Amino acid sequence: MFSEIRKRAKKAGHAPGSALYTGEPVNTTPQITVVTYNAKDYQQTSSTRLEDCFTEQKQDAITWISIEGLHDTALVKQVGKLFNLHPLTIEDILNIDQRPKVEEFTGYLFITVKVLLWQQATTTFGVQQLSLVLGKNFILSFQELDTTLFDAICERLKSSPNQRLRKQGADYLAYRLIDTVVDAYFVVLEALGETIEQVEKQIITAPTPHNTRTIYRLKQQLLLLRKSIWPMREAVNHLMHTEDNLITKFTRVYMRDVYDHTMQAIDALEISRDMLSSMLDMYLSSLTNRMNEIIKTLTIISTIFIPITSIASIYGMNFTYMPGLHWPYGFAFIMSMMGLVVIAMMLYFWKRKWV
Amino acid sequence: MFSEIRKRAKKAGHAPGSALYTGEPVNTTPQITVVTYNAKDYQQTSSTRLEDCFTEQKQDAITWISIEGLHDTALVKQVGKLFNLHPLTIEDILNIDQRPKVEEFTGYLFITVKVLLWQQATTTFGVQQLSLVLGKNFILSFQELDTTLFDAICERLKSSPNQRLRKQGADYLAYRLIDTVVDAYFVVLEALGETIEQVEKQIITAPTPHNTRTIYRLKQQLLLLRKSIWPMREAVNHLMHTEDNLITKFTRVYMRDVYDHTMQAIDALEISRDMLSSMLDMYLSSLTNRMNEIIKTLTIISTIFIPITSIASIYGMNFTYMPGLHWPYGFAFIMSMMGLVVIAMMLYFWKRKWV
Amino acid sequence: MFSEIRKRAKKAGHAPGSALYTGEPVNTTPQITVVTYNAKDYQQTSSTRLEDCFTEQKQDAITWISIEGLHDTALVKQVGKLFNLHPLTIEDILNIDQRPKVEEFTGYLFITVKVLLWQQATTTFGVQQLSLVLGKNFILSFQELDTTLFDAICERLKSSPNQRLRKQGADYLAYRLIDTVVDAYFVVLEALGETIEQVEKQIITAPTPHNTRTIYRLKQQLLLLRKSIWPMREAVNHLMHTEDNLITKFTRVYMRDVYDHTMQAIDALEISRDMLSSMLDMYLSSLTNRMNEIIKTLTIISTIFIPITSIASIYGMNFTYMPGLHWPYGFAFIMSMMGLVVIAMMLYFWKRKWV
Amino acid sequence: MFSEIRKRAKKAGHAPGSALYTGEPVNTTPQITVVTYNAKDYQQTSSTRLEDCFTEQKQDAITWISIEGLHDTALVKQVGKLFNLHPLTIEDILNIDQRPKVEEFTGYLFITVKVLLWQQATTTFGVQQLSLVLGKNFILSFQELDTTLFDAICERLKSSPNQRLRKQGADYLAYRLIDTVVDAYFVVLEALGETIEQVEKQIITAPTPHNTRTIYRLKQQLLLLRKSIWPMREAVNHLMHTEDNLITKFTRVYMRDVYDHTMQAIDALEISRDMLSSMLDMYLSSLTNRMNEIIKTLTIISTIFIPITSIASIYGMNFTYMPGLHWPYGFAFIMSMMGLVVIAMMLYFWKRKWV
Amino acid sequence: MFSEIRKRAKKAGHAPGSALYTGEPVNTTPQITVVTYNAKDYQQTSSTRLEDCFTEQKQDAITWISIEGLHDTALVKQVGKLFNLHPLTIEDILNIDQRPKVEEFTGYLFITVKVLLWQQATTTFGVQQLSLVLGKNFILSFQELDTTLFDAICERLKSSPNQRLRKQGADYLAYRLIDTVVDAYFVVLEALGETIEQVEKQIITAPTPHNTRTIYRLKQQLLLLRKSIWPMREAVNHLMHTEDNLITKFTRVYMRDVYDHTMQAIDALEISRDMLSSMLDMYLSSLTNRMNEIIKTLTIISTIFIPITSIASIYGMNFTYMPGLHWPYGFAFIMSMMGLVVIAMMLYFWKRKWV
Repeated sequence: MFSEIRKRAKKAGHAPGSALYTGEPVNTTPQITVVTYNAKDYQQTSSTRLEDCFTEQKQDAITWISIEGLHDTALVKQVGKLFNLHPLTIEDILNIDQRPKVEEFTGYLFITVKVLLWQQATTTFGVQQLSLVLGKNFILSFQELDTTLFDAICERLKSSPNQRLRKQGADYLAYRLIDTVVDAYFVVLEALGETIEQVEKQIITAPTPHNTRTIYRLKQQLLLLRKSIWPMREAVNHLMHTEDNLITKFTRVYMRDVYDHTMQAIDALEISRDMLSSMLDMYLSSLTNRMNEIIKTLTIISTIFIPITSIASIYGMNFTYMPGLHWPYGFAFIMSMMGLVVIAMMLYFWKRKWV
Repeated sequence: MFSEIRKRAKKAGHAPGSALYTGEPVNTTPQITVVTYNAKDYQQTSSTRLEDCFTEQKQDAITWISIEGLHDTALVKQVGKLFNLHPLTIEDILNIDQRPKVEEFTGYLFITVKVLLWQQATTTFGVQQLSLVLGKNFILSFQELDTTLFDAICERLKSSPNQRLRKQGADYLAYRLIDTVVDAYFVVLEALGETIEQVEKQIITAPTPHNTRTIYRLKQQLLLLRKSIWPMREAVNHLMHTEDNLITKFTRVYMRDVYDHTMQAIDALEISRDMLSSMLDMYLSSLTNRMNEIIKTLTIISTIFIPITSIASIYGMNFTYMPGLHWPYGFAFIMSMMGLVVIAMMLYFWKRKWV
Repeated sequence: MFSEIRKRAKKAGHAPGSALYTGEPVNTTPQITVVTYNAKDYQQTSSTRLEDCFTEQKQDAITWISIEGLHDTALVKQVGKLFNLHPLTIEDILNIDQRPKVEEFTGYLFITVKVLLWQQATTTFGVQQLSLVLGKNFILSFQELDTTLFDAICERLKSSPNQRLRKQGADYLAYRLIDTVVDAYFVVLEALGETIEQVEKQIITAPTPHNTRTIYRLKQQLLLLRKSIWPMREAVNHLMHTEDNLITKFTRVYMRDVYDHTMQAIDALEISRDMLSSMLDMYLSSLTNRMNEIIKTLTIISTIFIPITSIASIYGMNFTYMPGLHWPYGFAFIMSMMGLVVIAMMLYFWKRKWV
Repeated sequence: MFSEIRKRAKKAGHAPGSALYTGEPVNTTPQITVVTYNAKDYQQTSSTRLEDCFTEQKQDAITWISIEGLHDTALVKQVGKLFNLHPLTIEDILNIDQRPKVEEFTGYLFITVKVLLWQQATTTFGVQQLSLVLGKNFILSFQELDTTLFDAICERLKSSPNQRLRKQGADYLAYRLIDTVVDAYFVVLEALGETIEQVEKQIITAPTPHNTRTIYRLKQQLLLLRKSIWPMREAVNHLMHTEDNLITKFTRVYMRDVYDHTMQAIDALEISRDMLSSMLDMYLSSLTNRMNEIIKTLTIISTIFIPITSIASIYGMNFTYMPGLHWPYGFAFIMSMMGLVVIAMMLYFWKRKWV
Repeated sequence: MFSEIRKRAKKAGHAPGSALYTGEPVNTTPQITVVTYNAKDYQQTSSTRLEDCFTEQKQDAITWISIEGLHDTALVKQVGKLFNLHPLTIEDILNIDQRPKVEEFTGYLFITVKVLLWQQATTTFGVQQLSLVLGKNFILSFQELDTTLFDAICERLKSSPNQRLRKQGADYLAYRLIDTVVDAYFVVLEALGETIEQVEKQIITAPTPHNTRTIYRLKQQLLLLRKSIWPMREAVNHLMHTEDNLITKFTRVYMRDVYDHTMQAIDALEISRDMLSSMLDMYLSSLTNRMNEIIKTLTIISTIFIPITSIASIYGMNFTYMPGLHWPYGFAFIMSMMGLVVIAMMLYFWKRKWV
């Protein structure tokens, strides 16, 4: 939860615009993929060095440079220099604890979003930052780990010439990338929703103290999700209404669609939060009900047997002179007394609807 | 609850604008109804194939094409092509988990609302999506199942020439459809309100642990309702103030009326939510009260009989030398002692207002 | 609570603008009162038929037509026709479950407010809808029951020529009517406030389980009040800033005053809500305190007498060989032991501040 | 709490603009103080009649008329006539339950604020209404009781010619009065804050049932404070941005300062509210903890001694044939058994961390 | 918590613009540092008297005067006179309980922020006020204590000629100072986050009553933090959009970055608050669970042994005639009866899932 703040705190004291990677160092070589395409042509090269796959931007084609491996700050700086990025953009790409946002710089739009990936093994989700730089006819994407999230888009780019994706500009590709990211939120929401439904069933049938812990953990995860998804609303709204002409009217209609999806995700998120609260209420009231049940049992048993014991112990006293002790029906009489007490008690409980 | 997200999650990875029906597959053939009318003439044809009932749009009449059966994606696409709909419109018609919204496209307005139908059998309500495409003098309506909701409108269209409904444009018909949908919300709200009142009565007279579950289920249903009704406010507001000239000044006055109804529904919804919360509070305090009652009984019985048992057991010890054991009034003396303890205890309880 | 939604639900399916009275049918003949006045002249006629008291509007005088008895839909329609009212206005006048609102139509303003009347007998308040149609120099008022609320205004109109009320236009009369309605809210708020103070006193001195129920009922009434008063704020604000020239600059200053009063009523309402919540908290904590007290008593009695009983019962066993049984000081020794246990226990409780 | 609404309710039915004092009648003669000053001259007269101290407004000086004693409605009306005040202004001056507000009238600004005065004796604060009428070069102030709040300003006015206060216009004097009122809020907030800190300390060291009551009373006082301070924010903001030229650019900078102070007071208020809530939570959890402690003691004592009593009572039965009764080691054996039970129980509690 | 209000309350009654230090008097001599720099030159002088290090502002260089020691009001006034500061600015510099804010005065911007410094020793943070006056090419900074916070900036200013910091104007330096302050918030948030995580772990594994107190203390600290950080958002936003040309377009991009960081800090703050609430819920439910456990144990022990004691005490009565007393299998029979009761009870508990 607080790991992000911890990383952020480490940065305090450094000059702004200083290229400092705030994530965990990962021991992999960065992977650079350059895709150049227009309606007719398509070309893709991959390497670990930028020089190997990119020399100059073509004017009649869209260039997409995808960089996986932010820990190589030198590489990010190199790209920044090539595309004339503002020092703060470089800093924000490397600082992986950004809020999702859209910022306008001269010549390009800087977009930061959170990629959420569900990990079935740990039944939790991982958060990764994706930074996009959208220029006139180029797009740069930065992320730390290789995800298979954009494979479908790559495939489509490669295989379908003269399609919308190939004919439209870089802004449409940016839309497709963001749309894919938002779509993945629903996978996480679905997985969490399933856990919520399981806990719900348990609480209704057989609540255990463990449920509170699960609810707490779910709340924590929803808080984290919230932090990633809520600011998306503003960011996508910014994209829809940016005065920059980098985003065409054609693509704006699609951005409106992403906005709708974000709102849907937020709705689902808030409903999940409300339901967790209701569930906790239900759990707590079931606890109190249970306690009532237990105490009622104790009370019934005690109020029946304690008077009997009391009466019996009186006749167990060793006084020489005790009335009725030698009376032949003494025992039967006392036993009847006890029986009356039990019946009276039972009637009382029955009247109060305790039994 | 989370079934919608589940469906939505399945869509992740598909290209935008891809025509994919996200609902449950239903084994019925789609039903197409085409109504053409103006102040004087009225014509209605139904079929399972579009070609059978629609060839060309007439200029001097309003055309209403109603399609029931979204699972037939081919049909929806065919209609989309005929009326030149944007790919995202097609996608949104088929994706039945949209938020209620109004979107402006070139040449038409796209309206999505939720039809809520109360099912008395299950004491719950069903949610169905209704998509409307409102053009210059045509209106397209898409929904999965046949509902009898619009039968009254059809009847009126057919039977009353020269009436407002026949004389006004397609926008007025759209208003009538939306108005009918919003009116149906009150039926659902009434049914839920009745359940709430029942639970209330039970909690006041004889609360049972089952009440919490009912409150929880009601809360869940209100959350679902909320998700359907709240965005309607914005959508209808959009219709009232759209700069598009598809909606005439005449109809705008009526739209304001729908807006009022939506606000009324929202008010009723929020009051229901507040009352459920208060009810839970009342239920929980009744639980605690009950526990107090039970524990009080236990305490009174115990504090009266435990000292008696204690005293009696002392005189039940088998010591050879015990004072008063052979004293003729020993038993009577001890019994009086016990009586005093009981009286003292009773006075204490009475002073504390426990009895 | 839900009676309004029930009525509203009944209306579902009817065409918009259909004149349908949604209130309870009341077996009284409607009462029509027509007042015509200007600075010099004043004339008042009453009847059960419109024709008897109104023929034509005078140009140099203000006409106020007050109709009591909405169930006579024909009458309302007749008035609507005479004054050229929009079908939706007619519908809204008859649909008595409107939110308070102000709507601009060509030629007139339509104002709906809620009249709240405190009924001392049932210690609850009744809600009645008052609809006002404010035209150039006429005002129409519609309500179901005869209330004495506006008697003072009538009296003043009649008796004071050349006063502000007689010299100003219809808008000033409308202001006076609305002001009277808002003033009556304070009577209801005061009555509820008194009940709240009583409950408060009870909870502080001697809380009973009945308090929760009263708090719940008060909360419900405040919710209902809220529904009537909150939208007034927007409605009066609308009146203050309407671009229509039906409301003069002179009257607008007075409208601002009504707005202030509405805000005051809302403040009082919200403070009452907050106090009810705090009261419930206090009540619940008093419940827990009480339980603590009870359990403490039980614990003290039990922990003192149970060990004594235990020791005594050991010496009550019938073993032939038991140490000390025949020792002359055996009984005294055991009694001292018991005394020590009691003292030890008492010290423990005293140290823990339980006694 | 509801005394204000009660007074307000009494007013219902009266015509607007009617001069009706809503406060408690106070048996003192009103006090009128007229101060006339400019950079050079200063003159002050006091009397109980207006004629004695004010005849005509000087054009080259600022006139400040301070009236203490609102119950003399005739006097207020007389002042109103002299300065040409709107009837609603007169009504608002006399109606002492106004929300703090600023209203623009032709020729003057009407300002209503709440003066809060801490009363150490009752450890509560009194609320008094101060109404200011700010005109071109005059200022009228109205309040019921004489407070020493503005003595410092009077003193400064008198003693320091050629200072800011003497050289600036009436708007600067108004600012000084309002600033003094807002400054006094901090005295009340400090006093309440001290009580809050005391309760906090008590709850941490030795919580008593009385704490809830104190918290409840504090909450109530904060609600009252809130009602007085929150609307100040809007009022002062209005003063800062009023388009009226009664407030000079010079004074506006100072108004911004009052705004900041109001925000600070609101911050302190909200923090106090949040802290009271947290405190109540802490108190309630301490109650539950205490109950746990008590019940644990009861359980430990009971579970140790009840089995012992049980075993002992078995060997106290009077059967002729009972095994081991005459066995020389019978008693020792049973005692060991009891010891084992105690040890087993103790181990169980120790394992569960109850002891 | 309330110490600030206390200081503020002391000020009540003083004239506005009066130079009054509201902090604790500190026994150190103030420290004045004057830095003059441009792209080429750099000069730094320190002294305890202003005259020693500052005579006149150079036109071709940026002057930064840093004053540490606000208790020397004479010095602050002297600086104020030199740079022509508004009396309210002087007052605000000395009044160390300001809300973070940005105010525009003629010729300069006045910025107040809170410096938060984590103190590991007391595991709490200190709050100090930093006031900045940003003019055309000068910047004045005021704070009470010497902090090492800005040492890095000083170092960088000195050591790197021709760098951004040296080449840009005073506004960029102001940005750097504010950025450093905001960065330090994350250090505090991290430290609090670590405490929160520790408490979380404790509550999950072994909750103690002490946890509530810690949660309470953390809540209090978050409230304090909130008061310092929330207004920063508005202040920085003001800086970003000020119409003053004191802040260049170049620096505005950087201000946007500070804004993002502030939003991040606010996010972290709100998440911490939400988590503390959830934690308290979890703690309280663990308390109730624990009580359930304890009461269950008591109930099981009691309901097993109380009936046994009861039966045994019946056969311990001293009646002469009691059935089965002399029957050889009497004891065995009764013992079997007791065994049956135990088994029945056990079955009941097992069926109810209590064991």
